[in-house]
Amino acid sequence: MVVSVQALREFTVQAFRAIGCPDADAALAAEVLLSADLRGVDSHGVARLSGYVRLWEGGRLNPTPKMRIVHETPTTATVDGDGGLGLVTAPFAMDVAIEKARRYGSGWVAVRNSNHFGIAGYHALKAVREDMIGFAVTNASPLVAPTFSSERLLGTNPICYAFPAGNHPPVVIDMATSAAANGKLEIAERAGKAIPEGWVLDPDGHPTTDATAVKKGGALLPLGSDRDHGSHKGFGLSSIVDILSGVLSGANYGPWVPPFVAYLQPVADQPGQGIGHFVGAMRVDGFRPAAEFKANMDQWITRFKHARRVNPQQPVIIPGEPEEEATRHRLENGIPLVEAVWNDLGELASKLDIPALRG
Amino acid sequence: MVVSVQALREFTVQAFRAIGCPDADAALAAEVLLSADLRGVDSHGVARLSGYVRLWEGGRLNPTPKMRIVHETPTTATVDGDGGLGLVTAPFAMDVAIEKARRYGSGWVAVRNSNHFGIAGYHALKAVREDMIGFAVTNASPLVAPTFSSERLLGTNPICYAFPAGNHPPVVIDMATSAAANGKLEIAERAGKAIPEGWVLDPDGHPTTDATAVKKGGALLPLGSDRDHGSHKGFGLSSIVDILSGVLSGANYGPWVPPFVAYLQPVADQPGQGIGHFVGAMRVDGFRPAAEFKANMDQWITRFKHARRVNPQQPVIIPGEPEEEATRHRLENGIPLVEAVWNDLGELASKLDIPALRG
Repeated sequence: MVVSVQALREFTVQAFRAIGCPDADAALAAEVLLSADLRGVDSHGVARLSGYVRLWEGGRLNPTPKMRIVHETPTTATVDGDGGLGLVTAPFAMDVAIEKARRYGSGWVAVRNSNHFGIAGYHALKAVREDMIGFAVTNASPLVAPTFSSERLLGTNPICYAFPAGNHPPVVIDMATSAAANGKLEIAERAGKAIPEGWVLDPDGHPTTDATAVKKGGALLPLGSDRDHGSHKGFGLSSIVDILSGVLSGANYGPWVPPFVAYLQPVADQPGQGIGHFVGAMRVDGFRPAAEFKANMDQWITRFKHARRVNPQQPVIIPGEPEEEATRHRLENGIPLVEAVWNDLGELASKLDIPALRG
Repeated sequence: MVVSVQALREFTVQAFRAIGCPDADAALAAEVLLSADLRGVDSHGVARLSGYVRLWEGGRLNPTPKMRIVHETPTTATVDGDGGLGLVTAPFAMDVAIEKARRYGSGWVAVRNSNHFGIAGYHALKAVREDMIGFAVTNASPLVAPTFSSERLLGTNPICYAFPAGNHPPVVIDMATSAAANGKLEIAERAGKAIPEGWVLDPDGHPTTDATAVKKGGALLPLGSDRDHGSHKGFGLSSIVDILSGVLSGANYGPWVPPFVAYLQPVADQPGQGIGHFVGAMRVDGFRPAAEFKANMDQWITRFKHARRVNPQQPVIIPGEPEEEATRHRLENGIPLVEAVWNDLGELASKLDIPALRG
């Protein structure tokens, strides 16, 4: 089923309004969520809408948060998200970071007491529009085991850097720090296919190609997959994200991060509040004239695009380029929804008593 | 052969003085280099001393650089290293970053026209001693191929974050963004052993287990090894480092980064100057009281150390812990040098006419 961007946005706004979000917040949350669908990151778009609603039903999401800065220097701040949507608290934090960068060259904001913030790329790209380098990370429900462990202690904890370019689209590195995203397991499971070794461990800590292993109590592996191939590096990257997002902000971290799925309860004795994010912005012209930087970025992009290919049919992909192409295509042709998501949104319409989405 | 830290430091200082470094620079460069030997990162310590000297012999290293800030805002700066040792320019840049962080909460400094800066961890740890979070990256001689390419376009481009803790040593993530470091290939080659698939490509772009493949014109693979296991993420991380270090500073980037080994000449038509670094510091108490942060870091460390083990004999390793242990051990027992390095330093003594190192 393919739906127009306009129809999907309107539906999403209505859903957020139905759970009590003020109009401006509902519009912003819908924009962030739809940016994932536009960029082709289907796992982080409207496919998650009913998940947010279930968190609200479970009393774990505050639709009318009083976000506030609780700690501050000229270029750093910590924001308390008051249990609000990460889709709203993270843009608030990024606005603070950008304003600080405008005045002092750079700005860095930690967020605690928040929830899932959608795709990191949305937040980092806000800075790019101001000719700044954008940075966004978040911790997430524990699913990934550190090297030498089989215990789920870290989220897929994404890292995003976004850099402005000149004639080319921005370079956007937006990546989970696990070897594979959870969504890939679901796709393999639906297709009844085995997954490559190196993505997950079974509940006993053994390598497996069973796409349902994580559901059965196993764990995702960090980027690098095993010690020989650098899984300690993926563990390290995920730790950076967890410390910046969770420990630095006063949110939860490691195994204490509350799960996104509402049917799992947060563990007891949490050391912090909610989940955490960390965003930042640096003015390009804090280092050199922006035009010079962008000209060199264009050269960088062109050179890498034309790198010698292993397979003549497969060029090097510049990070962010496929998402830019998806956006162009989907703005014109609409957003395809798989049946499960279409049905999910149908049920949501009934539950929230809002007009059903039309194809 | 085991040598005392004091003897090795004195020898290294003498070598740097012999090529014309002022006393203070020679002492600093020796300290940075020895910090690698102390931390057990043997590939980045005195094993590289003769490499720096050869760069100087080749006229590609300025022993008396006039380092200066060429661009600045309250919290950002670009430093021109004037062709000096990265071992000297990077600490200069980090001092600038720390001073900015002291005043404004954070500080970020790009360096161009520099050379190899030793271990990233040394630079990031300078910030930790001020109760700041330290960040250090650098680009390097191109050896790594992007996903879908067999062309060497990126260095092993390390990323380092260092976080202060309370009762525990700092958490230091200091990692090359390639699947395996070049030094591991040399160890396998010397032992006549095959390497795991996923570390390198042969000159035709095929996977291989030949430890000499890179020497023969092949390439290192990014962290993740292949597309299925996330090599595009390793490529993305390496790109972040290259853009921050090279493009943002006005240094070279990608295939234009000048090689560390003096027998390879820099390519023509370079877009920038020398190699680039990027360092930063953020005050912990710019986000929350440092004591609270450190208490939570201690809890984080303890929890991860006690994670459920796959192999009962192998606990989870906290990033930075093995390096801390190596430092304690080597300060007490001296620094072991393999024969090749010992001989290399002997030849260096003759060449530079300085007293030979004693065991």
